[in-house]
Amino acid sequence: MLTDFIGQQMQQCEVHAGQQEVKLSRQLYLALKKAIQNLIVRTGERLPSSRAMAMDLGLARNTVMSALSQLEAEGYLETRQGSGTYVRYKISGHSIGNRPSPKSDCVGEVPQAISGRGALLLRQAVADEVEVQPFTQGMPDFSPFPLSLWQKLQNKHWRLSYADMLDYNATGGFMPLKRAIAQYLRMHRNMVLEDDQVLVTTGTQQSLHLCATLLADPGDKVWVEDPLYWGAAQTFRASGLQLQGVSTDAQGLNFSQADPLPDARMVYVTPSHQYPTGGVLALDRRHALLQRCRDMRAWILEDDYDSEFRFSGPPVSSMHGLDVHGRVFYMGTFSKALYPGIKMAYLVVPKPWVHSFKRAHYDLNRPGLIHQQVAMAEFIELGHFHRTIRSARQHYAARRQALLQALAPCLHSQASISGAEQGLHLCVHLPHHIDDVALANWAKTHGLTVRALSRYAVTRHDLRGLVIGYGYAPLPAIRKDGPLLASMIMRALGARM
Amino acid sequence: MLTDFIGQQMQQCEVHAGQQEVKLSRQLYLALKKAIQNLIVRTGERLPSSRAMAMDLGLARNTVMSALSQLEAEGYLETRQGSGTYVRYKISGHSIGNRPSPKSDCVGEVPQAISGRGALLLRQAVADEVEVQPFTQGMPDFSPFPLSLWQKLQNKHWRLSYADMLDYNATGGFMPLKRAIAQYLRMHRNMVLEDDQVLVTTGTQQSLHLCATLLADPGDKVWVEDPLYWGAAQTFRASGLQLQGVSTDAQGLNFSQADPLPDARMVYVTPSHQYPTGGVLALDRRHALLQRCRDMRAWILEDDYDSEFRFSGPPVSSMHGLDVHGRVFYMGTFSKALYPGIKMAYLVVPKPWVHSFKRAHYDLNRPGLIHQQVAMAEFIELGHFHRTIRSARQHYAARRQALLQALAPCLHSQASISGAEQGLHLCVHLPHHIDDVALANWAKTHGLTVRALSRYAVTRHDLRGLVIGYGYAPLPAIRKDGPLLASMIMRALGARM
Repeated sequence: MLTDFIGQQMQQCEVHAGQQEVKLSRQLYLALKKAIQNLIVRTGERLPSSRAMAMDLGLARNTVMSALSQLEAEGYLETRQGSGTYVRYKISGHSIGNRPSPKSDCVGEVPQAISGRGALLLRQAVADEVEVQPFTQGMPDFSPFPLSLWQKLQNKHWRLSYADMLDYNATGGFMPLKRAIAQYLRMHRNMVLEDDQVLVTTGTQQSLHLCATLLADPGDKVWVEDPLYWGAAQTFRASGLQLQGVSTDAQGLNFSQADPLPDARMVYVTPSHQYPTGGVLALDRRHALLQRCRDMRAWILEDDYDSEFRFSGPPVSSMHGLDVHGRVFYMGTFSKALYPGIKMAYLVVPKPWVHSFKRAHYDLNRPGLIHQQVAMAEFIELGHFHRTIRSARQHYAARRQALLQALAPCLHSQASISGAEQGLHLCVHLPHHIDDVALANWAKTHGLTVRALSRYAVTRHDLRGLVIGYGYAPLPAIRKDGPLLASMIMRALGARM
Repeated sequence: MLTDFIGQQMQQCEVHAGQQEVKLSRQLYLALKKAIQNLIVRTGERLPSSRAMAMDLGLARNTVMSALSQLEAEGYLETRQGSGTYVRYKISGHSIGNRPSPKSDCVGEVPQAISGRGALLLRQAVADEVEVQPFTQGMPDFSPFPLSLWQKLQNKHWRLSYADMLDYNATGGFMPLKRAIAQYLRMHRNMVLEDDQVLVTTGTQQSLHLCATLLADPGDKVWVEDPLYWGAAQTFRASGLQLQGVSTDAQGLNFSQADPLPDARMVYVTPSHQYPTGGVLALDRRHALLQRCRDMRAWILEDDYDSEFRFSGPPVSSMHGLDVHGRVFYMGTFSKALYPGIKMAYLVVPKPWVHSFKRAHYDLNRPGLIHQQVAMAEFIELGHFHRTIRSARQHYAARRQALLQALAPCLHSQASISGAEQGLHLCVHLPHHIDDVALANWAKTHGLTVRALSRYAVTRHDLRGLVIGYGYAPLPAIRKDGPLLASMIMRALGARM
């Protein structure tokens, strides 16, 4: 029955793909995943041996092994030494259903009765395209996270539970956690701040939404980097703001005092590692930006999303550390350093506005989940956070190295890499005649998720390239798929040169 | 040392309060709480006996006992039979700091550089006033929640943890949880829906924000009930919408087709138990509202925040069940049925918009915390949710009864009660010459949190009364404080009649 199902699925896959070539191992991977999700094979069941499957399906054994090993890496299967491969996937027999199907019936169609703002948001929505595979950007490796220790800490605090921990919180977060975060920022981000300036949020999206709501009115302008992080763009749009793209280059936001840029109410920047191109905002530009913001009475929103992972180049400090006028709202997150679903991040608010932000945070978001904050405070205080980051950094360094090595052959006068000094992704820049969207789609049919750089543009038309993540895929996957990706880039370049 | 600290605190309290009378037991309560929070006495330490404290402080022993019992009810102290009273409050030696101090330095002051929208929000902010005490409204009793079972379920799923559970979720929530919620709504709320129409959110605030963002543009009008739930008002303001108050009476939203109400993009209603007055939206008005919304092409946001707890009167079904045109977005929450800090709620989206809402939810909120959703799915499937609600309902029924009994003497031609058939609060209506804000403040000095009805007004000037919660305070507290509250109401009435 399993073999029948898989055979059927693979046939359908061929039909859908049309002329596009879909690797057999990818077809098998998708079919098997579906079989597990649809309970064709159930948790604990043993799969036929790879040899038997290869024979039944008429595939090379290597093809089968490759699909199985990807499913094992993703937690769907488990190999028991000398016994076989078993289905591990299970939560009360249902699929977790983590990502929406890209074949949903109204992709791209924007319903009429939705508001203008809603339609704008939906035209830009990314959720459909999210598929976590090798080279997915913005996605960390969860494996260094000490899950059982985390569980133990949470349990301890559940046992101690007081009513306060089950209630909403109106003070901007659990005080010891705010203290631990402030201490971390003083030591590692060169910041001068009081513990109480830290607000615990459920993510940078929430931090941004708070800032956009309190600091700007609908119709106000916000300067953003061009290219730009999608999540920020969507939050600003939702708050009714107008995006004013500002070109960025290797030194970050590229504006001169002479620029006829219209004044804005806020400036959103990722100065330590521009998302997605990875440039570091140069010191003279930082000072110029601070000056311009003083002149136009604008706030700076500094999104420091991955500063925990710096691999080479001089250390980069925060804009917040340079600012003596209290114009910078600083954002950090635990989603990259620990895991995304933890939904914990922080916003450092300039002192005069702390009280206002606490009140608005309570009113708009009713913060809760204090038991998790209590566990996190202890996680940091006991040094586990530091150890987790250190271990993750080693993992990422090796992956980054492997990816750089794989990509080396395709670099020449027309292609270059930026942003590899920090974080979990890098950017390959390509000549502007390359169709990077087609290239990314082509990679997808081979089981690789990369993002076209042009998709991050606000108004620029000159951006072509690929944004490639190395956080999620394990080292062997990068060693295997890196050269594949490189060869695709070379083919795209060669075909048009 | 403890006695010195307390003496000092109580002296300060007297000075601050000025001419207002602050009950001695309330002063002692505040001073002792501060002593615990500031670690003047530490966890596990035994307090002096009530007799000794009374002697040292020159207070009646009853005064001391009353303060101690309130602190015990709140989890700060623990009485061990035959051994004495011990400090129980502790999370790694730090205070949880749950509520912002009302004496903060910029209460009420709206900073200049904040946006117009921000200023509007801050003028209406409630966070400062939140103090959980007997009669705090909107606050459930946490005690029926089976905390250790909840912990066990979460642990189980932590052990099974797969990568997906640590990641963001883009499908609107964990499918088995959506299924369990849909099933509950079919059985108990008379709703016709598919599992996939359920979106899991972090709270009604998030559900409202999603709707406001996708369904309305800045400047659009939203009809709201007058008086109105604060949280909804703040979310609409944050989204740039204009509130159009519509009078409500005992039959809910009171509008006639002849009304010159300007058209709106959305209508926000709490039809099963109007917040805060508790009216049930009458059937003819429901039909009229549905018709008017069809005519003006408006959406209905139905907030069904406490329908789990109905004590008397005929069962009330949802607006959603009446709507055949897919105009109703239905919202429910676990914050009242389980505990507020759980941050789990749901939004039922009309079928054509499900896909759009999932995408926007992912883009704006990056939903996570799947492990908690997994545990909740099982919590419901195994019947624990049902049992918890049933047990809570019994608790609340007794408390409600005690409160009604206590309030009976102050009801006469000029004062009446509404909204006691359902939920965790009721509303006492008072004649319009009564200063209900002063009355609520007066109650506060006696350790009772009630809300002035006039504070919920959108544009009405005729609202006077008190909104009184019976969810949080245990039965003995209601038996003790109910008559006190009643006597205060009577005094206010008597003084002016």
